[in-house]
Amino acid sequence: MSTPDVGRLIGVGVGPGDPELVTLKALRAIDEADVVAHFAKQGQKSHARDIVAPHLPERIEELALRFPVTTEIAKDKPAYRDTIRKFYDQAAATVARHLDADRTVAVITEGDPLFYGSYMHLHVRLADRYPVEIVPGVTGMSGCWSSAAMPIAQGDDVFAVLPATLPAEELVRRLADSDAAVVMKLGRHLAKVRRALEKTGRLARAIYVERGTMAGSRHLRLADKKDDAAPYFAVVLVPGWESRGESR
Amino acid sequence: MSTPDVGRLIGVGVGPGDPELVTLKALRAIDEADVVAHFAKQGQKSHARDIVAPHLPERIEELALRFPVTTEIAKDKPAYRDTIRKFYDQAAATVARHLDADRTVAVITEGDPLFYGSYMHLHVRLADRYPVEIVPGVTGMSGCWSSAAMPIAQGDDVFAVLPATLPAEELVRRLADSDAAVVMKLGRHLAKVRRALEKTGRLARAIYVERGTMAGSRHLRLADKKDDAAPYFAVVLVPGWESRGESR
Repeated sequence: MSTPDVGRLIGVGVGPGDPELVTLKALRAIDEADVVAHFAKQGQKSHARDIVAPHLPERIEELALRFPVTTEIAKDKPAYRDTIRKFYDQAAATVARHLDADRTVAVITEGDPLFYGSYMHLHVRLADRYPVEIVPGVTGMSGCWSSAAMPIAQGDDVFAVLPATLPAEELVRRLADSDAAVVMKLGRHLAKVRRALEKTGRLARAIYVERGTMAGSRHLRLADKKDDAAPYFAVVLVPGWESRGESR
Repeated sequence: MSTPDVGRLIGVGVGPGDPELVTLKALRAIDEADVVAHFAKQGQKSHARDIVAPHLPERIEELALRFPVTTEIAKDKPAYRDTIRKFYDQAAATVARHLDADRTVAVITEGDPLFYGSYMHLHVRLADRYPVEIVPGVTGMSGCWSSAAMPIAQGDDVFAVLPATLPAEELVRRLADSDAAVVMKLGRHLAKVRRALEKTGRLARAIYVERGTMAGSRHLRLADKKDDAAPYFAVVLVPGWESRGESR
């Protein structure tokens, strides 16, 4: 894959949080890299880095890509989008300088790099210019339904990932139209999601999961959760399969 | 987790095919198990077993769960369903005998155990009677979009998994209604899927993937694939994200 002149870009999924849910391939990619890059919020540590910290070689060069502070800008404003786009442009340029110097850069990312991951913003900026490899990872969703030990989809189930940011009517429509679903990015939208599940007769079997396979993980029937407070990364699992006639 | 009297049931995902895409946790579960169980078709080897073969301890007891031959029974007939259900009942009873003898049984499964996996049929029969643990795995889908290096979903994308067995009109409706999708179980349905993608204006960006991260894997633009022959486990990836205005 690699050409004589430039380094390789590797998007490396390190799984949902449990350090044991890293693959052998991810560890090899990190071990073979010259530079390990990771995204983090300002003033916070990178979760992806925490996950693989014991495996980082001493000689490795680390590249921390720090998101700009955007708390004062509304997310639906062009100014927000411009700020984020500029950040990714600059991050890609920084990574490109390493690649141009014939260094292999492993960008580590929680979950799977190409499934709702920040790595993708680098990928679309660099993949047409440099040799690229992807190491898939266990997704955050898989971590959630596994920690809850809940079968999510089977056979000919239609499975949907729905952001909780969708309008209430659309959530209702899509929940009614899917055999199985994961509602993600709950944050302040949990009350709306709860009502949508109630309307579609699916509240009884829905499971609320907080922190997936990370430390402090917990899950409970959403119907048993008394309040509507939820962190941004909490999810609700809506299982398919058993609700259908051909169960088991 | 384990009680003094019975063994533990562990559903272990071993990933999409590449032996390096196994997690550290899966290897530990296999190492700690007394029995490793795997599903396989009659006369065929278990793919899950192939993936972890180099890691199976010599002392381990293997339990091969062989699907009954059903080629002569139409899949929509009650006789088919009864045969399969009886097989899972018997398989669960066999596993239960090991658990009753205080032995830990790791059921290894390709991909992720609770996402369209055969393990789930044992899980629903045993999880209320025995201590159960799930080790999530990298899904076959993640393996596919990673081998094609194709970003699949980002931001507030609605993502759908659609079985190719759906009626043509329903495929069209659901493809039009999703930002990103994976159409699975292609087999003899590829021509129908191709037409549905054409009707929804999504053929140009759709990628056909055969054998994911396994040996002999290949992927190409579906529009460039001349024929409509496809194995059962081939998939079509329909990327979201870049098609939307807020790309990048």
